[in-house]
Amino acid sequence: MKRYECDYLEGADEQVLRALVETNAEQTVGYGEDDYCGLARRRIAALCEMPGAGIHFFVGGTQVNLTVIAAALRPFEGVLCADTGHINVHETGAVEATGHKALTLANRDGRISAQQIRDAWRAHIEDATHEHMVRPGMVYLSHPTELGTLYSRAELCAIREATLTCGLRLFIDGARMSYALAADPQVDLPFLARHCDAFTLGGTKCGALMGEALVLPDPQAWPLFRYHMKQRGAMLAKGRLLGVQFLTLMENGLYVALGRKANAQAQRLKAAFLAKGCPMLCDTLTNQIFPILPDDSLARLSDRFTYAHWTKVDETHTAVRFCAGATTPDANIDALLTAIQAL
Amino acid sequence: MKRYECDYLEGADEQVLRALVETNAEQTVGYGEDDYCGLARRRIAALCEMPGAGIHFFVGGTQVNLTVIAAALRPFEGVLCADTGHINVHETGAVEATGHKALTLANRDGRISAQQIRDAWRAHIEDATHEHMVRPGMVYLSHPTELGTLYSRAELCAIREATLTCGLRLFIDGARMSYALAADPQVDLPFLARHCDAFTLGGTKCGALMGEALVLPDPQAWPLFRYHMKQRGAMLAKGRLLGVQFLTLMENGLYVALGRKANAQAQRLKAAFLAKGCPMLCDTLTNQIFPILPDDSLARLSDRFTYAHWTKVDETHTAVRFCAGATTPDANIDALLTAIQAL
Amino acid sequence: MKRYECDYLEGADEQVLRALVETNAEQTVGYGEDDYCGLARRRIAALCEMPGAGIHFFVGGTQVNLTVIAAALRPFEGVLCADTGHINVHETGAVEATGHKALTLANRDGRISAQQIRDAWRAHIEDATHEHMVRPGMVYLSHPTELGTLYSRAELCAIREATLTCGLRLFIDGARMSYALAADPQVDLPFLARHCDAFTLGGTKCGALMGEALVLPDPQAWPLFRYHMKQRGAMLAKGRLLGVQFLTLMENGLYVALGRKANAQAQRLKAAFLAKGCPMLCDTLTNQIFPILPDDSLARLSDRFTYAHWTKVDETHTAVRFCAGATTPDANIDALLTAIQAL
Amino acid sequence: MKRYECDYLEGADEQVLRALVETNAEQTVGYGEDDYCGLARRRIAALCEMPGAGIHFFVGGTQVNLTVIAAALRPFEGVLCADTGHINVHETGAVEATGHKALTLANRDGRISAQQIRDAWRAHIEDATHEHMVRPGMVYLSHPTELGTLYSRAELCAIREATLTCGLRLFIDGARMSYALAADPQVDLPFLARHCDAFTLGGTKCGALMGEALVLPDPQAWPLFRYHMKQRGAMLAKGRLLGVQFLTLMENGLYVALGRKANAQAQRLKAAFLAKGCPMLCDTLTNQIFPILPDDSLARLSDRFTYAHWTKVDETHTAVRFCAGATTPDANIDALLTAIQAL
Repeated sequence: MKRYECDYLEGADEQVLRALVETNAEQTVGYGEDDYCGLARRRIAALCEMPGAGIHFFVGGTQVNLTVIAAALRPFEGVLCADTGHINVHETGAVEATGHKALTLANRDGRISAQQIRDAWRAHIEDATHEHMVRPGMVYLSHPTELGTLYSRAELCAIREATLTCGLRLFIDGARMSYALAADPQVDLPFLARHCDAFTLGGTKCGALMGEALVLPDPQAWPLFRYHMKQRGAMLAKGRLLGVQFLTLMENGLYVALGRKANAQAQRLKAAFLAKGCPMLCDTLTNQIFPILPDDSLARLSDRFTYAHWTKVDETHTAVRFCAGATTPDANIDALLTAIQAL
Repeated sequence: MKRYECDYLEGADEQVLRALVETNAEQTVGYGEDDYCGLARRRIAALCEMPGAGIHFFVGGTQVNLTVIAAALRPFEGVLCADTGHINVHETGAVEATGHKALTLANRDGRISAQQIRDAWRAHIEDATHEHMVRPGMVYLSHPTELGTLYSRAELCAIREATLTCGLRLFIDGARMSYALAADPQVDLPFLARHCDAFTLGGTKCGALMGEALVLPDPQAWPLFRYHMKQRGAMLAKGRLLGVQFLTLMENGLYVALGRKANAQAQRLKAAFLAKGCPMLCDTLTNQIFPILPDDSLARLSDRFTYAHWTKVDETHTAVRFCAGATTPDANIDALLTAIQAL
Repeated sequence: MKRYECDYLEGADEQVLRALVETNAEQTVGYGEDDYCGLARRRIAALCEMPGAGIHFFVGGTQVNLTVIAAALRPFEGVLCADTGHINVHETGAVEATGHKALTLANRDGRISAQQIRDAWRAHIEDATHEHMVRPGMVYLSHPTELGTLYSRAELCAIREATLTCGLRLFIDGARMSYALAADPQVDLPFLARHCDAFTLGGTKCGALMGEALVLPDPQAWPLFRYHMKQRGAMLAKGRLLGVQFLTLMENGLYVALGRKANAQAQRLKAAFLAKGCPMLCDTLTNQIFPILPDDSLARLSDRFTYAHWTKVDETHTAVRFCAGATTPDANIDALLTAIQAL
Repeated sequence: MKRYECDYLEGADEQVLRALVETNAEQTVGYGEDDYCGLARRRIAALCEMPGAGIHFFVGGTQVNLTVIAAALRPFEGVLCADTGHINVHETGAVEATGHKALTLANRDGRISAQQIRDAWRAHIEDATHEHMVRPGMVYLSHPTELGTLYSRAELCAIREATLTCGLRLFIDGARMSYALAADPQVDLPFLARHCDAFTLGGTKCGALMGEALVLPDPQAWPLFRYHMKQRGAMLAKGRLLGVQFLTLMENGLYVALGRKANAQAQRLKAAFLAKGCPMLCDTLTNQIFPILPDDSLARLSDRFTYAHWTKVDETHTAVRFCAGATTPDANIDALLTAIQAL
C-alpha cells in the first residue's frame, strides 16, 4: 500500500535525521534555550530579513495555534477565519477551549478576502448591541489553505491593510509553508514578516520529525510569550530537537527545495488525472491535489493507494485529496501515475 | 417617549412587587435554600406535573445559559443551535468562555429542525476525522425564538426524538416562555418537562424584576448542580428574592396571563401595521413583531417611540422590532396604534 | 428563631425598597445605560472625589470578583491573596474557572502585608524557572476581611506602594464596605480611589436587595470593560434596579449610616460576650464578631439564635460568627443580648 | 562543562535513536493509530498485566498532566496534590488554565499521605458551605516525587483505599518512572496498574527523545479520550515517533535498566558527598540527589559542573540538585566524583 492521504506519513528528511543523530550525545540546557535553538532562531530571522524577530519552536500545529490565539486575544475577543480554517474545523475546539470564539467567514477555495474582514469588523462596530457580541480581535489565515490554494501577494497586502485599519492582529498558519514558498516566490519570508503579526513555518508536514517555528516579527507586541507556551504544555523539555531540525531545514535552501520537489510530484499527479478527464475540485499549485473521480475508479485505486475522502460531488463521483510531501519517494509517485494512466 | 425596543423596560408586575415588599423584613437563610424558594420550586414542579423535577433560580439569562451548557458538556463537546440563537449571537461568547463551541445550524425564522440535528450528528460520526472535530453534545433551542416564532408540539416531539437517538441533551431557553405558553397551549409545562433535559421559565422579560427559573426534569442527570451555579457567580445571596417572585408569578395563572396580555397587545400592533401595508419580516403570535417599514415612516415614529433596528431590507425599507411585554401599559399601545394609523 | 449567621438575611433597607417601588412603572433602557445608573455613577464618583472614575454595577460578589480578575490578568498570571480570601475559599473556584490561579499568602487575622507581597514577587522574579511558574499579576484584598478586620490607612499605603513597585494591580473586595467606612473614617472613599486599581462597594450585605458597585479609578486601564461583564453573565437586563438602589444608598450618607448602626449592634454583642468571659477569636470593630464559646453555652443559644460555625478551638470550645447587618432590627439584638447575659 | 541540573540534557538512548532511524522511511498513518503505537500499547499493557488497559502517548509531561486532569474533573472539582507537586509549582498554572484548582496538602519530603487525603475530603464534605468550595475530585501524586523520594507499596495501598473511599480518582505522574521501578521493585507496573486510575511512564527523562505513555487501567472510565488529547494540542501527527520509542524502551527491560544505571550513578555521587560531610536535604534512592554544600565548595564545582539551585539552607550553605539520567555517560560521573573528592 502506498499512502497519499496526508503529508506526514514518513519520518524526517534524511539530512534532518542525520543532524539529530549527530548531536544526540551532546548536553544542552532545556526548554529551547540551547545553542541550536539560538542558531536556528538567528537563521530564520535572517531569512526573514528581520533580525529582531522573536522565534519560538513548538511541537505541533494545534499547539501553536491555540497558544498564539489565546496569547493575542482579550477574553471577549474572537478570531475571524475561513469556515474551512483548520482552527474552526479540525482542532476539536482547541481555540474555544481557551475561551475564544472562531468567527467564521465563507471561504472561496479556502480563502477569505480583505473585504470580508472589513465588512465583519464594520458589522460589529456599527451594531448597537456590539457589547453583547464577540469582538473580532484577530484574523487567522492558512497559507497554503486547507484546500491547497495560496494567497497572492496582492491579496495579503490588502488583508494586511484591512487588519491594520480595523486594529486586528493577523496570524498566518503556515503548517505547509515550504510548499507555499516554493509555489509562489513572490510571497517570501521577508514579505510575510513585514505583513503579519505572527506566522508559522511548518516542520511536521515539511521534512521534520515534528515541529513548527513561530515567527513574531515584533516580539515586543508579545510580552512574556514563553509563559504562554509553558502554560499550554508547549515548551519541549529537549527543545534542541526542534532547534537542530529547523537549523537544518533552513540551511542551504533545504526547506524550500523539499517544498518544490513535492509540489512537482503533486503537479505530475494532477496532470495525469486531468489527462484522464478527472477535473479538480479546486486548482492548486502546491502539494495537495483534489481530483474528482468516478467512484469505480476510486475503488480500483483503493486497493493499492490511500487518499483522503473530501466530499461527495454527485451520485457517482467523489472529490478526494492526494498529498505529496517533503519525504514522499519518487518511486511512490511513479507507481500512482501508472495506476492513474491505467484507469 | 414610549419605549418598545425590548421587553424589560419597566420594573416588575405589581403583584410581584407587592410580594417583595411584604416579605422584605423577614429573615431567611440565603442562597436559595429558604422557604419561598422551596414553595416556588414545588409549585413549578407541580405545574410541570413532575414532582421530582429539580428547580434552580438564576438572576439572568446569559448566566443560566452558560451554567447549564457548561454543566452538561464534556470539554470536547459543543452545542448545536440556530445561527440566530441567543448564545451564538448576543452573549459575547459566554459559552465559548466556558470552553465550548457553538455549532451553528441555519435557522428558518429562528428555528432549527430535527432533520438538521440528525444530519449534523451523522456528519460528525461518519467523518473519519471526527476525533479532530468538536463533538455535538447538546441542542439549544429558544422558545419563543429570537424572531418571536414558536416550535410546534410536533416539531418539539421530532427534535426530542432526534436528540434521544443521537445521545444529545436538549435545552430550551425560555427567556420569553410566558408568551409561548399563552400563544400555544399545546406546548404546556408538562409537555416541556417530558420533552427536554432542561428548560427555563424566564422572569426578567415576563413580569419579574429579574430572574430565570431552570427546570431540570431529571435532577439525577445533573449531580451537584449547585456547585456549578456558585462557580459561575450565579447563586444569589438573597435567593428568596427569586423565590418570592416566581411563587407569585406561578400563582393563579399570573405568568401565562401576563403573556396573554402582551401577546394581544403585540397582535393589535401587528394588525395595525398590516392594515397600513407594512408586511412582517416573519409572522409571530407572541409579544415581538417585526414589521418592515418605509424608512420615512420609521423616521416619523422615532420621534415618539423606540424600537429595535433589525435589518435593512432594501434601499428604502427596514425591518424593526416592537415588543410588548408583561408590564407594558395599554395606554402605551394605544398611543402607538394612533401613530401607526396616522402614518 | 432570630438569625445571625450572615449579613444578608433580610431584604433591603426601607428607603432603598421605597425607591424601587416608586420607580417601578418607569420605562428605561436596559443594561445599566439608564439615567438612574448614570446618576448613581456620578454620585459615587463624586464621593470618591474622582469624577472620571468608571463605575459598573453587578448583582453579586463572586460575579464581580471573577469578572474583574479575569479582565485584569493575562492567561499566565495569578492573583495574590490571603489564604482566607473569599476568592480562595468560598467561590467554588470561580477564579480558577476563568483560568487563573489564586496565589495564597498566610493571613494574619484575615490580612496580608506589603512585605508578603514584595517577598512573593521577588521570589517569582528571582527564580531561575520563573517561566514555569504562575506570575503574580494582581493583589486581592478584602476590606473588611473575612474575619471582620480592617486594613489601616498605613497598611494600605504600604500595600499600594508594593503593588506599584512590583507592577501588580490592586483590587479591594468591599462586599462589606459600609461597615469599614463606618468603623474607620481614615480609610474613606477618596483614599480608596487613590490607592487601588479597582474596589467594590457592596450592596447585598449593606442594605440593598442585591448589588455591588465596582469603582475603577482609572477606566482607561480597563478598556471595553462592559464586554467582560456581558461575557460573564454579569450585565443585568434591568440595570436600573442597581442604579436606583445605589443612588439611594449613596444619598445623605445612608450607606455609612447603615454600617455605623450595624457596627454598634455588633459591638454591643461583643461587649456582652466579653462580659461573660467569652474571648474573641480575633478582635473586630465591624459588623462581624467571632466569640469563642463553651459548647454547652452554644447549644443553649442555638435554640433561638442562628450563627455561623467558624472553627473548633478545643475539646469544649468553638469559635462562631455572629453578624449584625444594615437591616438587622434592634429588637433582635436586644433578644440576643438578654440571652447572652443569661448564659 | 558537564551538566547535572536535570535529566533531559542529552538526546535519546542509542537503541531508541537507532529504532527511529531504522523506521524513518516507512509510511504509517498518523495520530497514534499506526502499528508501532499498537505494538507499544500491547507491550505496555502486557507488562502491566492488564491487557485491556488504555494506553495513550503524549509528547510532554505538562501536556499529559493537564489533559488527564481536565478530562477527569467536573468544572467545580479540583485536584489534591502536594504543595511541591509539579502541577502546583512548575507548570505555569496549566491545570488552572483548564479551569481547575490545585488543592494543596503540605508535603513531607515531596509526599502526601492517605490520612491527609481523608482529612481534606472530610473537611470538605462536613463543611456546611461546601457548595461554595472547590470539591476534591482527584488526587495527583508524583512517583518519584519532585524531591526524588518514593511512595512505598504500603503507602500507595493506603492512598488507593482512601481515594476509593472518598470517590476520588488517583493519578500518578511517573515522569521519572524508570528510576522508581529500578529503585523499588515492589512497586512494579502490575501493582501500579491495579492501584490507580491513571499513571504515566515518562520517556523524556528516561531515555527517549521525548514522550510520556499514559496508562488508563480502565479505559471505559475515560470515554472518548482521544478527543481530549486533540483539543489540548496533544495528538502528535507522526504519532509513530512515540510508538517506536516506547516499543524500544519497553523491550528486554531497557526502561528499567536505564533507570538502574542512573540510580547507581546518583548513589555514587551521594556517597561521595556524604563522605565529604555534606548531608542530603532528603534521602533519595533514585536519580536525583540533594546535597547541602558549603557555598565556597559549590562555587568551586560551578566552574566545571552545572546543577540546580534548590534552597538556601543557612548563611553559608545551599541545597542543590544533581541529576543522573538514562543517558548520562559514566565518564561524566567519574569527573564529578573526582571533583567532589578534591573539595
